[in-house]
Amino acid sequence: MKTSPSSSVSRPRVLIIGCGFGGLEAARHLRKADVDITIVEKTNHHLFQPLLYQVATAGLAAPSIAAPTRLLFREQRNVTTLLGEVVEILPATQEAVLADGLRLGYDHLIVAAGSTHSYFGNDQWAEFAPGLKTLADAFQIRSHVLMSFEQAEKESDPVRQRALLTFVVIGGGPTGVEMAGTLAEIARHTLEGEFRRIDPASSEILLVEGGSRVLQAMPESLSQKAREQLERLGVKVRLGARVTSIDATGLQVTVDGQDERIPSYCVIWAAGVAASPLGKLMATATGAESDRAGRVKVEPDLSLAAHPEISVVGDLAAAMSYVPGKEPKPVPGVSPGAKQMGRAAAANILLRIAGRPTKPFRYADYGNLATIGRNSAVVDLETPFGALRFSGKPAWLFWLFAHVYFLIGFRNRFVVLMDWASAYWSFQRHARVVADVGASGKSES
Amino acid sequence: MKTSPSSSVSRPRVLIIGCGFGGLEAARHLRKADVDITIVEKTNHHLFQPLLYQVATAGLAAPSIAAPTRLLFREQRNVTTLLGEVVEILPATQEAVLADGLRLGYDHLIVAAGSTHSYFGNDQWAEFAPGLKTLADAFQIRSHVLMSFEQAEKESDPVRQRALLTFVVIGGGPTGVEMAGTLAEIARHTLEGEFRRIDPASSEILLVEGGSRVLQAMPESLSQKAREQLERLGVKVRLGARVTSIDATGLQVTVDGQDERIPSYCVIWAAGVAASPLGKLMATATGAESDRAGRVKVEPDLSLAAHPEISVVGDLAAAMSYVPGKEPKPVPGVSPGAKQMGRAAAANILLRIAGRPTKPFRYADYGNLATIGRNSAVVDLETPFGALRFSGKPAWLFWLFAHVYFLIGFRNRFVVLMDWASAYWSFQRHARVVADVGASGKSES
Repeated sequence: MKTSPSSSVSRPRVLIIGCGFGGLEAARHLRKADVDITIVEKTNHHLFQPLLYQVATAGLAAPSIAAPTRLLFREQRNVTTLLGEVVEILPATQEAVLADGLRLGYDHLIVAAGSTHSYFGNDQWAEFAPGLKTLADAFQIRSHVLMSFEQAEKESDPVRQRALLTFVVIGGGPTGVEMAGTLAEIARHTLEGEFRRIDPASSEILLVEGGSRVLQAMPESLSQKAREQLERLGVKVRLGARVTSIDATGLQVTVDGQDERIPSYCVIWAAGVAASPLGKLMATATGAESDRAGRVKVEPDLSLAAHPEISVVGDLAAAMSYVPGKEPKPVPGVSPGAKQMGRAAAANILLRIAGRPTKPFRYADYGNLATIGRNSAVVDLETPFGALRFSGKPAWLFWLFAHVYFLIGFRNRFVVLMDWASAYWSFQRHARVVADVGASGKSES
Repeated sequence: MKTSPSSSVSRPRVLIIGCGFGGLEAARHLRKADVDITIVEKTNHHLFQPLLYQVATAGLAAPSIAAPTRLLFREQRNVTTLLGEVVEILPATQEAVLADGLRLGYDHLIVAAGSTHSYFGNDQWAEFAPGLKTLADAFQIRSHVLMSFEQAEKESDPVRQRALLTFVVIGGGPTGVEMAGTLAEIARHTLEGEFRRIDPASSEILLVEGGSRVLQAMPESLSQKAREQLERLGVKVRLGARVTSIDATGLQVTVDGQDERIPSYCVIWAAGVAASPLGKLMATATGAESDRAGRVKVEPDLSLAAHPEISVVGDLAAAMSYVPGKEPKPVPGVSPGAKQMGRAAAANILLRIAGRPTKPFRYADYGNLATIGRNSAVVDLETPFGALRFSGKPAWLFWLFAHVYFLIGFRNRFVVLMDWASAYWSFQRHARVVADVGASGKSES
């Protein structure tokens, strides 16, 4: 197993690590290029992460937001897809090494390995407060949430029962806000009338945020709106609350100096994002700098100073946007950023192959939007005429169609729209299926 | 946690163990009855098992064939649903004990715990040849199948690669035939053009059956048709082949005295069915007899001789069908049988409550049908005018609409039809998603 997939070919070999938004767009941009592309990916699918919380909250089935990577590149004959995890990068020999020992040689490397959740050095919390990055995460959270209600229905001790009906989301970013809002909808509406001994509507949904407002990437006015909409949905928003410990029966928070214990058996982590471990690995291998979050600092053209044949894009890159005549601005860790970086890195590879100078990356910011729950969202659009900000139902409809539009595949767009329509009118969520209620907490669908 | 859910109520307490076809129909039959029903189920959903192989072969997402038990009984106010596993039945005190210690008292008990797969005393085979009974099984098989192709694409050793592209289904019953036929379709059509170093169409799909024909519950002529259709789809049917061992790299079979080794990394078990372990447990507790497959022998009215307050239905029951003037005939282990037994047991409970004599069970046999794959199925209908037998595309269409008709929920019927239509025209299967490619082989969607 020590052969490189393209070594037999003389065309430039482009290796892309990861098939999230960055990797996918890079490979697509090279669709007509006279190169041999190898995509190596840890999973067998491209995941539409903006809707992952819908899988976690049983609103959508996994296949609706995940497309097999192979299928996406079936017609693009210059792409070879390999399933595997890169454990080492050897800049000297220009090879990437997979966990199973397979070595992939490259002439140009695009690292788009993305990010994972960070517990800020408290990795022991992961066991009690799962984060949401992969489908496996989503199934675990789905199971965890649904099983809490099941346990509560069987519980005779009122104190334990109350804790089982207390759901805590840590982190007031887009994911945390979406999760909290949707959990409130599940408790208030979806499960209505299905239990005989508990009232799901009596559940407490807490959103714990260390900062002074939710959605800090948004303008203050929209943060305020988001908070109001969350509270209207029945979410208790706890700002300025710092988490000091999490265990099997709840968590400890500090609010202006005061310690507080929150008993809960279902805590969801949406607080910290860290770059893929590959970041540090590369920094060591290439001498590149990495920032606090473990993201690799890149040149204006997204390559590495010491290794122009290596580019880093997406959440793994600490990249800046260069607009002529303006101060460089950091690129936000959102999917449009990853897509644009992927295309830019691919374009620069073509320039390099043509022996022409590369171009600095310029991020086109179309704004920012976040959904909160039923009929609630906030939108902050950058338009040629200035910022356009709105919230509530119009923002929610805008969010809905924007996301359906960017989904891959007609069938998925269609089914997602249908599931959302039926969920909207029936308050039901059709993916409330837990395949394995074992201790693993794993669930599937 | 030692309280019984209905002990506070004076109405007769009906406890139903299991929410497959038998348990579901029993509870529904009692919808207007003045009783308190408790359904205790190991999973949180009712599974439409006839289409489980479609989840295992990535044709359908799990939520399309699994409905949350609570949702099904939301409007039936005399039903309480509890998630849990019954580990003990105490006929003396009329209680069932759950794994978590909860005790459920009953006046009438319907045991509908179903069946699991049997490895005929070779449980060590389970690790290498998973069976197909639950959603978790289906996800494991889906992962196993898709990962075999992924591994083959990376494999440089031609011998190992060949073994990775050899898929063996053990057992020529309906499930085995469906699995083998669908695997052939995946290899020949679904994955076409997606790999660069292997040709999935070169895969070998073997159906290994110990008997002299497939679908032995069917008339011989249809078995012959099924075999021909399987071979047309590219399945190698090996009849009279007895499996003597299965390990991580393949299996050993004996064909008329000759030992043969089949190297394969993907073996699927569809051979043996055994009653739920609850069967033996009950036999011991109640003194009831159980047969070789561990099924509990029941009275004509589906109750236990020594405990008329306990009925057994579905795959767990060794039941006979009583047609006046005819010899009693064993009830086949098919979903119509389970449904009819469930209704009959419920009806007999109402008669018993009314102080009237119970009725012997009579199985209405509407015939038998099995699908083989694209455009292929066999149907053997019992009509007032005699048996109606057909095969091929008409049988396949009949099978298709019959299954969609019996699916629960409009959304599911609709999405399943749509997925089948798109699969039919595009040869695609939309649920090719593996969430966790870890050693566990677990996958989700």
